[in-house]
Amino acid sequence: MITLGEIAAVAEASLRGCDAATIITGVAPLNGAGPGQISFLSNPRYRPFLAVTRATAVILSPDDAADCPVPAVVAANPHVAYARVAALFEPPPETRRGIHPTAWVSPAARIAADAWIGPHCTVEAGAVIESDVIVGPQCVIGEQAMVGAGTRLVARVTVCHRVRLGRRVLAHPGVVIGSDGFGLALDRGGRWLKVPQLGSVHIGDDVEIGANTTIDRGALEDTVIEDGVKMDNQIQVAHNVHIGAHSALAGCVGIAGSARIGRHCMLGGGVGVAGHLEITDYVQITGMSLVTKSITEPGAYSSGLAVEPNRLWNKISARLRRLDEAFRRLAVLEKQANRKSKTIILDRKKKTNGHQGNS
Amino acid sequence: MITLGEIAAVAEASLRGCDAATIITGVAPLNGAGPGQISFLSNPRYRPFLAVTRATAVILSPDDAADCPVPAVVAANPHVAYARVAALFEPPPETRRGIHPTAWVSPAARIAADAWIGPHCTVEAGAVIESDVIVGPQCVIGEQAMVGAGTRLVARVTVCHRVRLGRRVLAHPGVVIGSDGFGLALDRGGRWLKVPQLGSVHIGDDVEIGANTTIDRGALEDTVIEDGVKMDNQIQVAHNVHIGAHSALAGCVGIAGSARIGRHCMLGGGVGVAGHLEITDYVQITGMSLVTKSITEPGAYSSGLAVEPNRLWNKISARLRRLDEAFRRLAVLEKQANRKSKTIILDRKKKTNGHQGNS
Amino acid sequence: MITLGEIAAVAEASLRGCDAATIITGVAPLNGAGPGQISFLSNPRYRPFLAVTRATAVILSPDDAADCPVPAVVAANPHVAYARVAALFEPPPETRRGIHPTAWVSPAARIAADAWIGPHCTVEAGAVIESDVIVGPQCVIGEQAMVGAGTRLVARVTVCHRVRLGRRVLAHPGVVIGSDGFGLALDRGGRWLKVPQLGSVHIGDDVEIGANTTIDRGALEDTVIEDGVKMDNQIQVAHNVHIGAHSALAGCVGIAGSARIGRHCMLGGGVGVAGHLEITDYVQITGMSLVTKSITEPGAYSSGLAVEPNRLWNKISARLRRLDEAFRRLAVLEKQANRKSKTIILDRKKKTNGHQGNS
Repeated sequence: MITLGEIAAVAEASLRGCDAATIITGVAPLNGAGPGQISFLSNPRYRPFLAVTRATAVILSPDDAADCPVPAVVAANPHVAYARVAALFEPPPETRRGIHPTAWVSPAARIAADAWIGPHCTVEAGAVIESDVIVGPQCVIGEQAMVGAGTRLVARVTVCHRVRLGRRVLAHPGVVIGSDGFGLALDRGGRWLKVPQLGSVHIGDDVEIGANTTIDRGALEDTVIEDGVKMDNQIQVAHNVHIGAHSALAGCVGIAGSARIGRHCMLGGGVGVAGHLEITDYVQITGMSLVTKSITEPGAYSSGLAVEPNRLWNKISARLRRLDEAFRRLAVLEKQANRKSKTIILDRKKKTNGHQGNS
Repeated sequence: MITLGEIAAVAEASLRGCDAATIITGVAPLNGAGPGQISFLSNPRYRPFLAVTRATAVILSPDDAADCPVPAVVAANPHVAYARVAALFEPPPETRRGIHPTAWVSPAARIAADAWIGPHCTVEAGAVIESDVIVGPQCVIGEQAMVGAGTRLVARVTVCHRVRLGRRVLAHPGVVIGSDGFGLALDRGGRWLKVPQLGSVHIGDDVEIGANTTIDRGALEDTVIEDGVKMDNQIQVAHNVHIGAHSALAGCVGIAGSARIGRHCMLGGGVGVAGHLEITDYVQITGMSLVTKSITEPGAYSSGLAVEPNRLWNKISARLRRLDEAFRRLAVLEKQANRKSKTIILDRKKKTNGHQGNS
Repeated sequence: MITLGEIAAVAEASLRGCDAATIITGVAPLNGAGPGQISFLSNPRYRPFLAVTRATAVILSPDDAADCPVPAVVAANPHVAYARVAALFEPPPETRRGIHPTAWVSPAARIAADAWIGPHCTVEAGAVIESDVIVGPQCVIGEQAMVGAGTRLVARVTVCHRVRLGRRVLAHPGVVIGSDGFGLALDRGGRWLKVPQLGSVHIGDDVEIGANTTIDRGALEDTVIEDGVKMDNQIQVAHNVHIGAHSALAGCVGIAGSARIGRHCMLGGGVGVAGHLEITDYVQITGMSLVTKSITEPGAYSSGLAVEPNRLWNKISARLRRLDEAFRRLAVLEKQANRKSKTIILDRKKKTNGHQGNS
């Protein structure tokens, strides 16, 4: 039983044309909402749906409020306001506490009394699970790993030995934290010798880690993910990477060893970052771009190429192979043009002279 | 004991130069087959092996049949025919039924009597497992998830709460279906606020999902994979994506939020699709291409660049950085050329006039 | 208690300015090392830290030894020497032997007496686990799979039926070996028919496989990873791929079906290799490049483009779409230039003639 009045309070929003006592039963998109549901308008792409929405109320900006045909919940940042409101309608969190009978917990692990260790979990010796932690089914917590208060490992998360997770970390199924970094030395015979990976991983508070993302432990020092970093699915973070606070990484990003990403950065899907470089704060990289050198200025960077019909693309890529040649041909033409310009000028002079001579 | 006659019936093929009673004991490639084995020729790349094959019979097209040195099983589509024949030689499917003693199944889950729940599985309250389902070892089936009849989860598959799988779905190890979408709102302080992911995932019938592929649940409405879609390994499907029936996605594809892929599309390995766009039916995208805008016409599209020796590539990429400059230099030359053409024409006139004047 | 003398012996190094009895308690980077710790200098990027290191000793090359302000452990290849020394400080390996009570092992599996099967593992009928194997928590070993002596599956590794792993293989969490290849035949109705994947996977000795990497089984013959291959995290290896001995693949590489990679190759992060092609020995491919044709010459190859500021990149990519047009415009200019050169020459002749005529 949530009222519009309660919603306005949570959203730090004001009501326009609303009865604060109206009961809201759920959230829905503008074009799918029905009676009892609240919707929101943030992305201008969806504005056309506002006129026809059947939502009981809509969260939107002061600018859009005038066009709202139904009661309006007016917020400076409707997306943030919506996020807060939607949280009211989330399924109730795990309330189980204790250790599931099918879990295996080392007697030398320390588990807070109000934590939950789910079915078929493995918790090794020396691991510390703090207060209010939810370890979902089939997670592995390695030796001496630390899981901070309020953290939730949804399911099948692997936390390797000595890894430290902060508070309120959220890790989705299939995440691996603390696997060995890819450290190899090339022996005389062209064989690879494994370089022991003796560091660990330190994850800050309020970090979210998407499904099947992997974060390697450091070779000597730790791999570090600072507070508030948000990582999507299938991201690969190599050893000794450092990601600054409040950066967001979309799916399939790959970051090579010892790269440093600044704070408040945004990396698009599939971005690749080479090793041993530094990206400063407030940098945005668009999807499928490749970073091979340090970036010292905030701003947006790209190197992704968008598809064209094959017929055109085949021509472009064939031409691209001859790009160097084209520049050289261009230079030849420019030289000729300069010479000719001079020639023509000279010719004119000659002609003029000739004419003069003939006059 | 499978005979060529039975094989012809399954393959909807005709026999040429064969004794229908010949016994076939297995399948093998053209260049590796020996007595008792049947092979096939579909990809023209492998035609050279036909002349020297030691297979007991070969499945091939009417066009290739004339060159077949051994008994021929002639089919209009040899690849399809082979697929049917090979199925005869697959290892027998899981025949266990019931619940493995090491599995943990909530008393509030509903499991069909002829389903199999393998070792160390976790099945939460409200989950429904229909008839003839095989849940391999170490799968997690979340609360109120539904798994349709005949589906097989090979091993270590995570099906999150409320996800619905159709009939005869095949999900390989490490698959995650229904993890939270990457929904974030940027707060005043530059901090990310989680947007609750309240939708779910709906997977149609006859969908195949490759190892370690991840499919996120919708933010509000469901992520949808229609019937007959085939997905390879390590694909990332973001929240609210919609993939049309009978599309095929190769490994490492990444699809951003709310993108709609049409029916009968084919996406090559490593393709990236940006969010909030639409790809129409019957579109093919070649490997490692990036789609950033809607595609409204069927056909093949690309943006991948193929490797060159470093020496050449370094020149190309250096030149590419100066491509805009090159276009401007080209325009300058064209202007000069036009002016000169006029100049020359004018000069000629002058000269002509001059000559006339002098004549 | 490890002395510098013991370290020199392991590293095949000579001591300079050292007391061989000095005790070393650990390894650390040049700029983080303190008393009792040994460091190393291999990457010239870190040379500036040498002058200020507080390490008790440093492993370095003969060339760098002169500048070493602390006792020096001089080795021809300091990276290899360091790898050997660091191994002395690794955490002790798993010493448990036997089968954890929560594991489920088929009575028809064969487990060496000195192997370890960890918590919640599943080992199916016919599987063979050789001597000194460590199977970490929550692994799945399929029917008739073979795991060679000294192999370690860290945690949550899936080894499907009939897969064969060599000796001393190291597989990190989330690895899947032997999932079905992506084999599909297109039926008349535009529907995909599954092609049974009847081959398996054969992994050689001393292979390392990174977290969440997937290796599909062959369609007919085996997928093969030869001895000494090192694979990073989240690599996708399709069916019937063959990777030659001692090749190293960085994170997020994707290799399509039936591709053959040579020996001693190095593939950078995110590289894509198309199917049915061959890469010869000693080839290096830089990060995020795409290989679409066979490579027959050793050497380094690239096709990745590095980021530029958006403003510049948007111009470049817009221009790139018109690259074919630019080449045509260039050709027109060249034609005109040639014509004009002739025209000017002709004009000069005319003028000369004219002048002559006037003379």
